[in-house]
Amino acid sequence: MSAPGQAGSQAAPRVGVIEPGSAVVVGTGLIGTSVALALREHGVTVWLQDRDPQAAKLAAGLGAGTELPAGGPPDGPADIVVLAVPPAAVAAELARAQSRGLGTGYTDVASVKALPLRQARELHCDLASYVPSHPLSGRERSGPAAARADLFLGRPWVICPLAENDADVISLVTGLSVACQAQPVQMSAAEHDQWVALVSHAPHAVAAAMAARLELAAPGALALAGQGLRDVTRIAAGDPGMWQQILSANAGPSGRVLRQVAADLQHAAAALDRVADGDDLAGKDVAELLERGMAGVSRIPGKRGGPPRDFAIVQVIIPDRPGELARLFQAAGDAGINIEDVGIEHSSGLPVGVAELSVRPELAGQLCAVLAAEGWPVRR
Amino acid sequence: MSAPGQAGSQAAPRVGVIEPGSAVVVGTGLIGTSVALALREHGVTVWLQDRDPQAAKLAAGLGAGTELPAGGPPDGPADIVVLAVPPAAVAAELARAQSRGLGTGYTDVASVKALPLRQARELHCDLASYVPSHPLSGRERSGPAAARADLFLGRPWVICPLAENDADVISLVTGLSVACQAQPVQMSAAEHDQWVALVSHAPHAVAAAMAARLELAAPGALALAGQGLRDVTRIAAGDPGMWQQILSANAGPSGRVLRQVAADLQHAAAALDRVADGDDLAGKDVAELLERGMAGVSRIPGKRGGPPRDFAIVQVIIPDRPGELARLFQAAGDAGINIEDVGIEHSSGLPVGVAELSVRPELAGQLCAVLAAEGWPVRR
Repeated sequence: MSAPGQAGSQAAPRVGVIEPGSAVVVGTGLIGTSVALALREHGVTVWLQDRDPQAAKLAAGLGAGTELPAGGPPDGPADIVVLAVPPAAVAAELARAQSRGLGTGYTDVASVKALPLRQARELHCDLASYVPSHPLSGRERSGPAAARADLFLGRPWVICPLAENDADVISLVTGLSVACQAQPVQMSAAEHDQWVALVSHAPHAVAAAMAARLELAAPGALALAGQGLRDVTRIAAGDPGMWQQILSANAGPSGRVLRQVAADLQHAAAALDRVADGDDLAGKDVAELLERGMAGVSRIPGKRGGPPRDFAIVQVIIPDRPGELARLFQAAGDAGINIEDVGIEHSSGLPVGVAELSVRPELAGQLCAVLAAEGWPVRR
Repeated sequence: MSAPGQAGSQAAPRVGVIEPGSAVVVGTGLIGTSVALALREHGVTVWLQDRDPQAAKLAAGLGAGTELPAGGPPDGPADIVVLAVPPAAVAAELARAQSRGLGTGYTDVASVKALPLRQARELHCDLASYVPSHPLSGRERSGPAAARADLFLGRPWVICPLAENDADVISLVTGLSVACQAQPVQMSAAEHDQWVALVSHAPHAVAAAMAARLELAAPGALALAGQGLRDVTRIAAGDPGMWQQILSANAGPSGRVLRQVAADLQHAAAALDRVADGDDLAGKDVAELLERGMAGVSRIPGKRGGPPRDFAIVQVIIPDRPGELARLFQAAGDAGINIEDVGIEHSSGLPVGVAELSVRPELAGQLCAVLAAEGWPVRR
């Protein structure tokens, strides 16, 4: 575990990057099929296997590759075998794949790393050829039909090299991540598990605990629900069986985060009780939690994967008709100003919308001047 | 409090619906300005007032009405006065507006109902002409520039009639909600507060408690964050001061929900500790919470109440440099296709972004064809 790099995560060390020419994907669910699709786009030969032959057939039908013959890849071991199975199944599948000699290198893409690694050691798997990894991506939906070749585009792909590893296999797994257009990041399995407990596993349980309060709620209460509640609880719709496996496979780190969240909520509840009893000062304790929450949420990188960039926002009122946005962007482009992001607010029924243009702060003044000069109603 | 109606909430009884012909909106933030915009669309004369004259001026500039003259509405009292101010400010503003004789009927749109009502009683406000209400809507952003005339479209608008109320004022407030295209729902102030604690106020504190764990997290951990964490914590970005007011104003009901969520999380954390210690059966307790969470989330009605607008999404890969978006929108505009919304995903380090263009479904094919013909890599 080395020092964090600039973007907050460790840049991949300068290992070689060996692009795999062929791959076996074991487990053609959402992640496995998406890996396969991404590799196919990259010209890699892909063999597909799943306990459920229909799933492998469907993935093949989506263009993700060819079903793996019973005898293994016809041309001999594939460069890389990707085990896209639940955490608790990784070690057994690894042992099976290695005993069949399916590949030169092996990796898994499970969302927990210490447990499969420990089990792989217990099963005496070959650790020279197995490099655990985890692409940080996913969707609410599951199964091959939800797969996308661009699922990993720009996302981190955590690689956890082992002391036992053959360097070439690390390079192959790095090449796999690059072929999937992800950003390879190296860290230890323990560090990975601690971090995903915080940003993924514990939030799932928190969403479930909030959503659980709705189970017996009056129907009228649910009719009042808005987008906020939907967002907070959305991921609680995920497969409970799969998430129980993930949380159990990462029990220590996840439990620690949940205990801290529970303590903060207990503290806030006690403060609100005192407010209800007339102690106005107790509201401070609630404010403190909300302030910390805002500070925390502001640390999440703004875009999917990149470091946070602080842009200035310029608001422009635009007529809601074809061509107006073009005119707006033309004016910005003519001035050499790159619009980093844009959001459009329509007021239904009104013939205008408000475009919010994100630009580098040092360009905001110039953009306002350029647009105002062309007659746009504009404000920062 | 009568029996729940079909939609799970009480249908508005068959009170008369009196459409207001004129309105004063006090407080031109997000909600007040949105009410004003909706009323203007409906042909209602709207007068705008805000402690900050610039805010009222901006709202007027957006077409939300006319700034209220110092002497009040020139043609005498407006049919309805809408107090769009924070919960703790409602009663004082009500007393002030009533003493100025600004309207025939009065309502507020604060997200808590029992507290302003109690304070209005304490201030000896006229309760014949004051019917508390609350449109269930809102956005992360605040201020008049974020306002939209369709903010309440299809959303519930809770109306809490009082024993003291003049029936015509109840009808006027009902007419106000209908003019804003909302769905009037009647319930008691106590019932309202209990329900919004569950679906709005407690979720906010839960999001904050999860987000607070990120405050001191390793930067590398945050680089691994995905959409799930963003969704769970999104509302924690809301103004802490405003939310402390709301939670404090609804302290009893909110505190009760938070204590239950904390207890469930504490229980799950203890179960995970036992799993980490080798007690595999303890995973059952975690599964039980996840199952209850899934049951709860499945009870939330699917959309934000209103008729959903389904746009088709067209993805276009664009070089990340000035002028490219202009070229893109120019092509769409030339073809007479209105882009309803646009989102841009940057992959940090890559020289391209993915623009997601929302268009009416029947235009998506044409847009793809137009863009592809001009050489854009495009897909639906």
